[in-house]
Amino acid sequence: MLMHGLVSGTGIRPELIPLINASRSAGKSIHDDSFVDEWIRINCHNAGLNTMLVPLEDLAGWRREPQNGNLCHSTGRFFSVIGIRCRHRVEASELEWDQPIIEQPETGILGILVKSIGGVMHFCLQAKEEPGNIGGVQLSPTVQATYSNYSGVHGGAPPLFLEYFLSPKPERIIFARMQTEDGGRFLYKSNRNMIIDTDSDFPLELPERFIWLTLRQIAGLLRKDSLVNACVRSILSSLLFESSGAGQDEEADGSANPAEICPSGIWDTLQWLDDRRAANHMLARRIGLNDLQEWGVDGKGFFSHNEKRFFRIVGMQIKTTSREVAAWCQPIIENPAPGIIGLLVRNSPQGVEILMQAKAEVGNKSAVQLGPTAQFTQGNYADSKKLKKPFLYDEFLAPKMSKSIHESCQAEEGARFYRECNIHRILLLKDGTQLPLPEDYRWLPLPHLQFLIHLGEQVNSCSRSILTCLL
Amino acid sequence: MLMHGLVSGTGIRPELIPLINASRSAGKSIHDDSFVDEWIRINCHNAGLNTMLVPLEDLAGWRREPQNGNLCHSTGRFFSVIGIRCRHRVEASELEWDQPIIEQPETGILGILVKSIGGVMHFCLQAKEEPGNIGGVQLSPTVQATYSNYSGVHGGAPPLFLEYFLSPKPERIIFARMQTEDGGRFLYKSNRNMIIDTDSDFPLELPERFIWLTLRQIAGLLRKDSLVNACVRSILSSLLFESSGAGQDEEADGSANPAEICPSGIWDTLQWLDDRRAANHMLARRIGLNDLQEWGVDGKGFFSHNEKRFFRIVGMQIKTTSREVAAWCQPIIENPAPGIIGLLVRNSPQGVEILMQAKAEVGNKSAVQLGPTAQFTQGNYADSKKLKKPFLYDEFLAPKMSKSIHESCQAEEGARFYRECNIHRILLLKDGTQLPLPEDYRWLPLPHLQFLIHLGEQVNSCSRSILTCLL
Repeated sequence: MLMHGLVSGTGIRPELIPLINASRSAGKSIHDDSFVDEWIRINCHNAGLNTMLVPLEDLAGWRREPQNGNLCHSTGRFFSVIGIRCRHRVEASELEWDQPIIEQPETGILGILVKSIGGVMHFCLQAKEEPGNIGGVQLSPTVQATYSNYSGVHGGAPPLFLEYFLSPKPERIIFARMQTEDGGRFLYKSNRNMIIDTDSDFPLELPERFIWLTLRQIAGLLRKDSLVNACVRSILSSLLFESSGAGQDEEADGSANPAEICPSGIWDTLQWLDDRRAANHMLARRIGLNDLQEWGVDGKGFFSHNEKRFFRIVGMQIKTTSREVAAWCQPIIENPAPGIIGLLVRNSPQGVEILMQAKAEVGNKSAVQLGPTAQFTQGNYADSKKLKKPFLYDEFLAPKMSKSIHESCQAEEGARFYRECNIHRILLLKDGTQLPLPEDYRWLPLPHLQFLIHLGEQVNSCSRSILTCLL
Repeated sequence: MLMHGLVSGTGIRPELIPLINASRSAGKSIHDDSFVDEWIRINCHNAGLNTMLVPLEDLAGWRREPQNGNLCHSTGRFFSVIGIRCRHRVEASELEWDQPIIEQPETGILGILVKSIGGVMHFCLQAKEEPGNIGGVQLSPTVQATYSNYSGVHGGAPPLFLEYFLSPKPERIIFARMQTEDGGRFLYKSNRNMIIDTDSDFPLELPERFIWLTLRQIAGLLRKDSLVNACVRSILSSLLFESSGAGQDEEADGSANPAEICPSGIWDTLQWLDDRRAANHMLARRIGLNDLQEWGVDGKGFFSHNEKRFFRIVGMQIKTTSREVAAWCQPIIENPAPGIIGLLVRNSPQGVEILMQAKAEVGNKSAVQLGPTAQFTQGNYADSKKLKKPFLYDEFLAPKMSKSIHESCQAEEGARFYRECNIHRILLLKDGTQLPLPEDYRWLPLPHLQFLIHLGEQVNSCSRSILTCLL
C-alpha cells in the first residue's frame, strides 16, 4: 500500500534501504508466490496440539496462592495471573475497576533473521503452533524466546537461531527495541522486537518449517485471516516507511544523513503526547484474584467477570507429539467476541495521515501510548452503565464518512490468548470531511509514527498490529 | 561553563534561542547581582518552620495499615510509605532486596514562569521553605503543585500562578515534559517539568518572595551549597545547550529547521540504551512494610535497615505561622550521610563529552534511564557483602586521572527528604587518558543528553541535577 523510500529519523542504516525497498516492491523473491501458498498449505494446516478447556482447579502444576488467590505455576516459572485494582483519573473524571492481568516480569525476544538474496531482503519466518492459535499453525518470527529460554537458567534446549539475537554486533542490528505488549492484559510487559541481518555465508537452505519471504509476500499474506502471527506484525511495523520524496525526505538530498533529520513537526507531536500523559493519572495495585470486585470463579470453573464482560481466564490441557514436553496445562485468556482495531486514514497535501489516539492502558508502564483510532470490544460497551462508548465507535461499526480500504481478522498471540482474533479495519476518510477531534486524538503523518516506533515503547501493540497491515 | 548557541533536536522554538542565550551570557539583568545577594540574604534565611523528629507512631493523622503495615495518611491523601520486594536480573547475576519506598501515584507540576525583559529571558523563582530543607528557605520554581492542589478536589487555595501551567497555549510552552523522580525512593513517580512564557503584559513587579533571575545569575547561585532547590535543577537541565557552531549545529545554517535535525549519532545512543534495557530485568512487588526483610522499627521509633544502611523513615512534627495550616505531621526520609553524584567529562574533537551510565532503578517505570557517571552513597558499599562497588568509585572519592572542575553540595527536595544533600562533583578527565568502559557506560556528547531530556523520562533525576551545574 505504501512505497518505500529514503527514511528519515528511524535509525535504519541508509545502505539497507534499497534492500528493504526491493523486498517490498520488487517481484523478485527466492520462492515464487505459488510455492509459498503450497508451502503454507502443507506447513500451516497440520496442527499437532490437542487442546481441551478445563476448570482452573484442574490445571496440573498450577495453584491458587493461599494468601491472595493468584494463579501461579507451582515452580514459580512461566507466568502468573494476578489481580489488580485500578484507578484512572483524567482531569475531573475518575474510573475505578478491578481486573485479572498477566504478570510475566521478564523481557522476551521476538526476532526475525533477514538475508539479502539477489539485492532483495528476505525475512525468515517459521510455521509454528501455539495452543491458542486459530487454525493451529501460524507464521511466526524466526525466534520467540522467553528469558528462561535464553538465560538457560532452567536447562532445556534453546530455540533454533537464538544465538543470533543474544549479543548481535551493532552492524547486524536492523531494528532492536523494547515494545510493550497488550497493556490491557499484561502488566508492565515488554518484549524486544528485533530484526537481525545475517552474514553472506548464512545458508540459504533453512530447516523444516522455516521459510524466506519478502515483505511483498508477507504483505500479501496479511490479507488472509489469522495467518501472520501477532509477533510478526509487531516487529514489522518498524519497516513501514513513507513513500520516497514525500515530506521530509526531500531534504535528504542535501548533505545531512537522512537518519539524522527528525520528521517535520515531530516536536509538536511529542508535546501533545506529553500533554496527554500529564493529564492521565493511572494507578494499579496488585491485590490478588481473591479480592477482585465483580470477578470470580464461574459455574464452569473459569475466572470471569460477573456480567460476562471483558475476558475470562480459562484452563487448558494440551497434548502433543511435536514438542519436548508431551503434555502440559496452562491458564489462557479467552475473549469471547472479536474486538475491533481500526485506523482512520486520510490523504493530505503532505501525504497519508493517520488518526491516532493517546490511549491510557493500565498495563503500560507509561500508561499513555499511541493507540489506533479504534480499539474496543463491542460487547464491553453495550448497555454498560460504567463505560462511555469511544470516539468513532459507530463509524467503525458502520462507516458513513469513510470507506473501508482494508479488512482482515488477525489473531492474538496463541500462547496466552485462546482463539482470539480482532477485526482489523482501515477506513479512508472521504475527501473534504470535517471531523472535530477530542483532545486525545491527532492526525499524524506516517514518519511521526515511524519515529515513535523507533524510539520504542511509545506505540502500543494494537497500533503496531494494524499499522503493519499498511505494508 | 557552556555557551549557548543554536539548538538542534530539542523542540525549543528557534525564536526563543537568542533570549535564552542572552540570559546565560549577557551581563544584563533586571536586578544586579548585589541586589540578588541581598534579596537572598533577606528572603532565604528567615526560616519559619519549627520542626522536630518524633517516632513514627506519634505522627498525628498517620497510621500503619493493619493488613500490611504501610504508613498512610488517615484520609488517604498526600503520600504513603510502602514496602516493596525487588528482584534485579542482569545477564547471569541476580540481586534481591526489600525496601520501603514512597508511593504518590499522581503527577505534580514543577513550573517556572519566564519573561523576556530587554531581550533577556528572566526566570521567576520563589524563596520557599520546606520542612526538610537545609537552611530552611531555598530558591524554588514559581509553582510546585500536587494533583490535589491543581485538581482542586480537596478544596483549599491553589498556589499562586498555578493557572499559567494548567492548559498553557502551545506557543507559551518553552518546555513541558514528564520527568521521573528519584527512582530509588519514589515508586513510578513522575512530575511535569515546565517552563512557560508569559505575555508582554505580565507584570514586572512580583509578589513578595518571588524574584526574576537570569540563567547567568542562577548559574552563579548553583556554586553555593543547598540554595537552588532540586526542582529548579531538574527543570533547568532542559536548557543546557551545546555551544554554538559545535557538531550538528553547523548544518543548521542550511534550509532545515535546526529543531528538526537529530543530533549526529543519536540512533547509536538510543540503540545502546535499548540494549541495556533489554539486559536488565527488574521486578518490584508491593508487599507491605511489615513483611520487609532486614527492615523494621528501630529503638527511636524510626523505620530503618537493620545494618543502618541506605536510608530511614523518620517522623516529623512541623509548626509554623507562615502557612495555611499551623501544624502538621508527616513521615520524611533521612539519609544520614551525603551521597556523591558525579560526572566525568572530557574534551573531544567534537566538543565536550560526558560519561553516562545506563542505570537501573527500581522506581523508574522503564527501570533503566541515563544516570550520571557516579551515583552512590559511600556507606552503602563499605564492608557490604552484598553490593559491589560501582565503576569509578575510588576515582570520585580521590581523583587521580581527572581534576575537579565543579564541587558543590546540593539539597534534595525538602518536602520528602530530611536535610539531605549530595555532593555534586564534576571531574575533567586528563587529556589522553585511556579508560576502558563497562557495557553500562558510554561517552555522550551534550546534544545527545539534550535530545533525551527533551524526549522525557529518559534521563534520571540525579543526572538532571548535576547536568544543571554545567549551566
